[in-house]
Amino acid sequence: MANPNDPALHSWIDIAPGSDFPIQNLPFGVFETAERGPRLGVAIGEYVLDLYAVAQFGFFDDLELGAKMPKVFRRRSLNQFIALGRPAWRAVRQRVSELLRHDNPALRNQEEAMRECLVRQSEVRMLRPVKPQNYTDFYSSIEHATNVGIMFRDPANALLPNWRHIPIGYHGRASSIVVSGTDIRRPNGQRKAPDAAAPSFGPSQQLDFELEVGFIVGKGTHLGETVPIQYAEEHIFGLVLFNDWSARDIQSWEYVPLGPFLGKSFGSSVSPWVVTLDALEPFRVAGPVQEPEPLLYLRQLDNHNFDVHLEVAIQPEGGPETTVSRSNFGLMYWSMAQQLTHQASNGCNLQVGDLYASGTISGATPDSLGSMLELAWRGTRPLPLADGSERKFLLDGDRVTMRGYCEKDGLRIGFGEVTGKVLPAPAG
Amino acid sequence: MANPNDPALHSWIDIAPGSDFPIQNLPFGVFETAERGPRLGVAIGEYVLDLYAVAQFGFFDDLELGAKMPKVFRRRSLNQFIALGRPAWRAVRQRVSELLRHDNPALRNQEEAMRECLVRQSEVRMLRPVKPQNYTDFYSSIEHATNVGIMFRDPANALLPNWRHIPIGYHGRASSIVVSGTDIRRPNGQRKAPDAAAPSFGPSQQLDFELEVGFIVGKGTHLGETVPIQYAEEHIFGLVLFNDWSARDIQSWEYVPLGPFLGKSFGSSVSPWVVTLDALEPFRVAGPVQEPEPLLYLRQLDNHNFDVHLEVAIQPEGGPETTVSRSNFGLMYWSMAQQLTHQASNGCNLQVGDLYASGTISGATPDSLGSMLELAWRGTRPLPLADGSERKFLLDGDRVTMRGYCEKDGLRIGFGEVTGKVLPAPAG
Repeated sequence: MANPNDPALHSWIDIAPGSDFPIQNLPFGVFETAERGPRLGVAIGEYVLDLYAVAQFGFFDDLELGAKMPKVFRRRSLNQFIALGRPAWRAVRQRVSELLRHDNPALRNQEEAMRECLVRQSEVRMLRPVKPQNYTDFYSSIEHATNVGIMFRDPANALLPNWRHIPIGYHGRASSIVVSGTDIRRPNGQRKAPDAAAPSFGPSQQLDFELEVGFIVGKGTHLGETVPIQYAEEHIFGLVLFNDWSARDIQSWEYVPLGPFLGKSFGSSVSPWVVTLDALEPFRVAGPVQEPEPLLYLRQLDNHNFDVHLEVAIQPEGGPETTVSRSNFGLMYWSMAQQLTHQASNGCNLQVGDLYASGTISGATPDSLGSMLELAWRGTRPLPLADGSERKFLLDGDRVTMRGYCEKDGLRIGFGEVTGKVLPAPAG
Repeated sequence: MANPNDPALHSWIDIAPGSDFPIQNLPFGVFETAERGPRLGVAIGEYVLDLYAVAQFGFFDDLELGAKMPKVFRRRSLNQFIALGRPAWRAVRQRVSELLRHDNPALRNQEEAMRECLVRQSEVRMLRPVKPQNYTDFYSSIEHATNVGIMFRDPANALLPNWRHIPIGYHGRASSIVVSGTDIRRPNGQRKAPDAAAPSFGPSQQLDFELEVGFIVGKGTHLGETVPIQYAEEHIFGLVLFNDWSARDIQSWEYVPLGPFLGKSFGSSVSPWVVTLDALEPFRVAGPVQEPEPLLYLRQLDNHNFDVHLEVAIQPEGGPETTVSRSNFGLMYWSMAQQLTHQASNGCNLQVGDLYASGTISGATPDSLGSMLELAWRGTRPLPLADGSERKFLLDGDRVTMRGYCEKDGLRIGFGEVTGKVLPAPAG
């Protein structure tokens, strides 16, 4: 069988150069149209391959996907498909790759199957890809943690003493995770300016984005079980772009001592296509050197970072878009494997569909910072946009779009985007 | 119709004086036996009333519970039943009350129905009552927050500046919430003594309990919606006892700046019977005076605290049990209504089955503290047990049992208990 990541593969579907979805990607998502209820799909060029239809035409019959096939392909989330296990994901991706190869007529030459199995992306509505069972947000970019420490604590000791020893993280709100395209309402909340006598309640004045990448757990554990670091990646299904919208004023008044709460839980956005860890294999890179060396349970060999180029753009209502940041997921100090092993190290049970976000991904340069907080340095260096306006934080009507892609040796696979527009706060 | 809370009601089932489950309580839970798969039940005296069997015999036929009846009574959790809404919970509780009244022969005189509908509690296994969709842990006892502040921060400014303005809370781990009776494995984790040069990984040396009461959300909200304080209790289905097991050494090394994480997520225990807010109505009391007055969105009229007596007992392996604390849920500074309204104030969507825990419930006296941390004052005043041993924190083999009940004017309703035994940490 051909390796579905082989850069030489090409499809009988026309795929524009620079597309996020060549035959080497094949990310999974959930879509619906006016005619079809929710279906699982795979992105290919400008199309979605309807996996339920593919199954109905018998193309998966020999794959031994179990009794839940084909029902598993007409769900509102990927969860049940993911729960089939890694051999099933791999078999489906491999088969989809074969069906789409330029030299395979099996699907291409069946008119009815073609009509049923391929839908234009412009004609579908993408749904949230997974129902997140639990959501953890990490804080794993050393540049971001350092910047926050400089701004809010002590520039001389910006990193807290635990930071280089632990992939610091906290549990976030799973219910308010929404799919790209969902507008985000500016939250009301309690906040207190440092010089105010008392707190007040009203619309957040410091609405921000956070550029993150999330991963979806594909294999759970039982309570009491741990995950040795060398097996951690076997528990990962795939990756998404993640915008951890943050209300800085609410957050800074509430977060001591128990962490972020309402400053985050009003909404978080995920991209609709989950890029499998398998598809990202060609883009492994080494992460930063970890000094001091982590404790044994977090010590990893080989490369566990992934070279994903990331961009953030802001588009004011009716105006042009400005790319305000270019960063890279390969910069993460703590890897996904370390995050997952740490989460499970106390016996906490992982569940299929858990979502783990990286924390804001900032680079070392002023144009690679992953939040408005850092880009405008706590409001002290307003950020110019292409329409001539400036931003300290986000304004109503602003659309924030994050994009991500990998590129190497002529092969490019992408994540698509995660986008959302800021709506005004509700009255009172 | 008779008020099911009427202290004058009595049942044809013999109920021992001091039972937690007289006819005025009728809490909901989920059970199974060797013969019956999971079923929803109501506790009455030493029995469980099998709601699926009751439905099969037609006793709910006129209640208009909808198309999901009777299937909703043979689920692994109360979630779907709760989702039917408050009129359905009330109708079922009212009908169960009628069926169990001393002067109603409808069920009592049907031999076959009696055999199918009533099971001894000693013959059933109780399951986790709800699948928690999201779990939030608050920090709403002023005595507990003050004690922690004295121990870990500044005795002169023990309460943080935000504490009297916000019901401080954080998102906890939903997946590791287990039902009473589940043993709890001491977690391994990373910790660093203040005088140690570097952190190390191993079994927690400071395993603790936290005496809490949790409530279950019975009515959700949409993203962007808020819950005015006067309607908050309409979103509450019922209450459980909650043990928020805590590994203090892991927690203290990890929690700055993003809050508790692995120090908590190895397990939390809930009692199996959910006492409805309706059943607790006779036990409303005023909470502490809130000074300064909360902001308008958190300002409540009337009484929103509940007078629930609470106890914690420790039983070493093979030894006698010692009651180490007696506290009261009525002491809470922030009410459940305030917690819920605050959680939803930024538009965060609530979900049926969400679990919100109170935070450790400590009183003002040394024998009313809700955690070992406070009872043994950070290890400086070891707590004597009845077997002559002492505890700074929990030892392997210790069983921790929490009990709760309300009592007023001769009426007593109880929560049963939440219990769990500490197992040794897994090897390395």
